Amino acid sequence: MDRSLICPRFEKAMSILSQRWTGLVIYQLLTGPQRFCHIESSIGISGRVLSERLKDLEHEGIVKREVFPETPVRIEYSLTEKGAALEPLMNEIEKWSQNWLEAQN
Amino acid sequence: MDRSLICPRFEKAMSILSQRWTGLVIYQLLTGPQRFCHIESSIGISGRVLSERLKDLEHEGIVKREVFPETPVRIEYSLTEKGAALEPLMNEIEKWSQNWLEAQN
Repeated sequence: MDRSLICPRFEKAMSILSQRWTGLVIYQLLTGPQRFCHIESSIGISGRVLSERLKDLEHEGIVKREVFPETPVRIEYSLTEKGAALEPLMNEIEKWSQNWLEAQN
Repeated sequence: MDRSLICPRFEKAMSILSQRWTGLVIYQLLTGPQRFCHIESSIGISGRVLSERLKDLEHEGIVKREVFPETPVRIEYSLTEKGAALEPLMNEIEKWSQNWLEAQN
């Protein structure tokens, strides 16, 4: 296996996922498309930070933002195919953290 | 599912894994116990940084350091059970990064 090829991609993946809240935002979106305020209240993140994270994730092609021209306008966030492909990884992080980390930490 | 319980553990897992090089050090140790200089040259990390990362990982109970009383003394690093349990997660990070991230980034 050629580590010199894996290394930059592996590190890039870690650098995307390692931003505080990013994992939880993706984790939350695995349950389906949802509005900003729903994500905000579900994970208890501040609106300002959530807005930043969603922009970063859109930029990485992991999240998409859709505007539905209703009255009032409805805006929903969902995972792209690239984002949905993170599901097994998210499940593994959850599994490991449940098995090996203390609840109080 | 109770996010309020998952959240701190999930975040703790991300905070451990998200340190630069940590993922690669664990990934490298999945191939078996090895000496400091072998890890150093395999992943192209500086000795100073590797030393810090190994100490952090020992502190988290993910890596263990064994001293074999030979002449000269042999010191090997390996994954604990908690560290080895990260294998599926590491594989998922690798898979996702290979499928979805550009080699040049």
